[in-house]
Amino acid sequence: MAGVTRELAEFVAGSQWRDIPPAVRREGVRGLLNYVGCALGGCGDEAIGLAVRVLGPTFGPGEAGIIGRSERCDMLNAAFLNAASANVLEYDDTHLPTVMHPAAPVAPGLFALAEARGASGVELLHAFILGVEASCRVGNALMPHHYRRGAHITATCGIFGAAAAAGKLLGLDPVRMNWALGHAATQSAGLVESLGSMSKSIGVGNAARNGLAGALFAEAGFTAAESAIEGKYGFAVVASDTVDLGKITAGLGETWEILANAYKPYPCGVVLFPVIDACLELRKRIAVPVDQIAEVTVRGHPLLRERTDRPDVADGRSAKVSLQHSVAIALLQGAAGIAQFTDAAVAEPAVQALKARVTATDDTSIPVEAAIVEVRLADGSTLTEHVKDGRGTPGRPMSDLELDAKVNECAAFGAPFVDVTALIAAIREVETLGDAAHIMRMTPPT
Amino acid sequence: MAGVTRELAEFVAGSQWRDIPPAVRREGVRGLLNYVGCALGGCGDEAIGLAVRVLGPTFGPGEAGIIGRSERCDMLNAAFLNAASANVLEYDDTHLPTVMHPAAPVAPGLFALAEARGASGVELLHAFILGVEASCRVGNALMPHHYRRGAHITATCGIFGAAAAAGKLLGLDPVRMNWALGHAATQSAGLVESLGSMSKSIGVGNAARNGLAGALFAEAGFTAAESAIEGKYGFAVVASDTVDLGKITAGLGETWEILANAYKPYPCGVVLFPVIDACLELRKRIAVPVDQIAEVTVRGHPLLRERTDRPDVADGRSAKVSLQHSVAIALLQGAAGIAQFTDAAVAEPAVQALKARVTATDDTSIPVEAAIVEVRLADGSTLTEHVKDGRGTPGRPMSDLELDAKVNECAAFGAPFVDVTALIAAIREVETLGDAAHIMRMTPPT
Repeated sequence: MAGVTRELAEFVAGSQWRDIPPAVRREGVRGLLNYVGCALGGCGDEAIGLAVRVLGPTFGPGEAGIIGRSERCDMLNAAFLNAASANVLEYDDTHLPTVMHPAAPVAPGLFALAEARGASGVELLHAFILGVEASCRVGNALMPHHYRRGAHITATCGIFGAAAAAGKLLGLDPVRMNWALGHAATQSAGLVESLGSMSKSIGVGNAARNGLAGALFAEAGFTAAESAIEGKYGFAVVASDTVDLGKITAGLGETWEILANAYKPYPCGVVLFPVIDACLELRKRIAVPVDQIAEVTVRGHPLLRERTDRPDVADGRSAKVSLQHSVAIALLQGAAGIAQFTDAAVAEPAVQALKARVTATDDTSIPVEAAIVEVRLADGSTLTEHVKDGRGTPGRPMSDLELDAKVNECAAFGAPFVDVTALIAAIREVETLGDAAHIMRMTPPT
Repeated sequence: MAGVTRELAEFVAGSQWRDIPPAVRREGVRGLLNYVGCALGGCGDEAIGLAVRVLGPTFGPGEAGIIGRSERCDMLNAAFLNAASANVLEYDDTHLPTVMHPAAPVAPGLFALAEARGASGVELLHAFILGVEASCRVGNALMPHHYRRGAHITATCGIFGAAAAAGKLLGLDPVRMNWALGHAATQSAGLVESLGSMSKSIGVGNAARNGLAGALFAEAGFTAAESAIEGKYGFAVVASDTVDLGKITAGLGETWEILANAYKPYPCGVVLFPVIDACLELRKRIAVPVDQIAEVTVRGHPLLRERTDRPDVADGRSAKVSLQHSVAIALLQGAAGIAQFTDAAVAEPAVQALKARVTATDDTSIPVEAAIVEVRLADGSTLTEHVKDGRGTPGRPMSDLELDAKVNECAAFGAPFVDVTALIAAIREVETLGDAAHIMRMTPPT
């Protein structure tokens, strides 16, 4: 009997476009759109600028573009940078069962290959869907211990999807696809400890870069262990004490992990979404100036307070997991986008003043997708908002219109020179594109 | 109190050349010599040729050379290739307490930096010694569970030395050195499962490449977790269930791990060394043609049979851990060098015939560094050789002359165009070299 690595390789290598259900295709398009949007938002981040400066002297011939930037470089450096920029703002997609962000590692190698080798829109979309499938299935098999111990699953499992997707676009046979997954396994890396520092971006960038490299090595006949995942000294046993290898192969081609992929409405921790929704609604209802707010009380699932009760955050990065900051900016500014989670936004005196008046209480009867926010005004009156399904949670996924608005917000923040309307249209019509690289060519400054 | 990552960073950043004892300096020179020799031996290996073909299209400007080859490329690709070639033959150095091969990940980034940025011989040697120290100390802290579970320690811990060494040559301050180690931690990867396939070389190559990249990122101000090794979700807890962090910092600057670094006399498993020594001695004593050998019996520590009782090996790579093959080629050819562990050597009819007549027996009274080999000839007479300390074991380290001979053998195999005498002289005098890159310039074909 073939091992799970080989079985996964055979599935990816053998998958036909006609076998991909319409709902899966649609979610693939949405995933690509969200990916490109997030990369546009992040492409000007300080960490990405530094990375371009460090890697610039190593750039090979400019076969591939960097989303939202004018530099061009070799495929591997492009994959690194386009993964790092898509993830740097913590705004990218989330595979809910694993809390992995699959698109950032999987998509960049595909766009680089489309530019350097050529690929149609359907080929790229198909490979993207399969790459997300591979990443998430490997992740499912290792959770929960893998992440709990300290493995940054977006990087450690994302690399499998990056290799599988690139291998699909390269047309690898099952033996070579198996090797590509083997090269992914032996390069899998990334620590939760790195979150909160720029180093996180190296892990995510490497997942895309090294996954693509693994597929290119396999294409050339560079061999790997056939049993890279399930072997006695293989990835699974190294990566987790709670391994269920069956989750890698059960229902392959029948169930699709991309259907459990969600898109963030706000660039912050997912438990904050219903709280922010409630605050944005309250903001519309408060008739007096917002400096009349005397007190804000948030009731939510205990996880909310455990993860986000952080009144004293000092920078934009940590504000992304602060209940107090999120409530304050949503009420004060009527928005909770990228601009509301910057260092400058944190430093604003009005935000500082209001967040000191925000408290949270646990309510075990409230599910994690819900929250109740009560505002008491200076005159003693109160307003309450109860959100049952926060935007971007499973019961209330981002609509296509909301996704378009998010891409617009990202581009306005990081790459205001892009024709976003045309870009969104091109991605929504990706199945009709003869040349998938067309999308990349729409992103640099003109 | 500073964590171990910071403490290690402070030691490396603060180390002065005058603090390095003469014996440590001498072993550093020997380590560099063995490294360059092994890279010359491996530079023409099939895996290295394929890697050059795959990575070639991504090569940046030719700031750095590839040992024994004419191509030039950017520093990161050069580090990858010069690590892979130094390790591909399994002929490189061995840190005996961890069975790690420290030089292959640590040295390449230093030579690349010497070419691209400039460095004196003393600076390079100093950084090399410190890099070996960092790798081995991190390895000591994680053993034995780290390797036993499946982590390929040469890659997973070698990256710390690669980052520390490159950081030293870049003159990083303690904060940036800490970040460099943090970037190493989040990129640490490599599986024992990959051994026996070409994929092993990706792990080792990445350790050098990504360690150097980590130092370059840190130099530019790219931040990392200060507690990357010891943190709650840091490297140590992810990498091993038997962690002793004190081994990273105890006696820093007083004891030196490079003094436990050994050089292989034969490109095969270390337990085979005394067996091969004995066979080479017997070969000199057997007066009749070697086809008169009726039977060979090897008595050794049980580990010998457990690891190497493999009569049916079919290729050069697995022959490196076959007692039967090693005995047969040593007796037939009077040598056990690179040429004796190729696919062609395995396929020779005389080798096939003799290895079928080789058996092993356990003897718990024989230490692992020793072996007794008995040859029975067709006329019924027997010859016996008892080796107490195999060459390349702690009791009988490789002499300088033996090391020179090994470098000559490697160069003759992989890079016969090199002026080996001049190259050895340059490395032995590395402390006097104003420009360490001089060594690299002596290796390509003219």
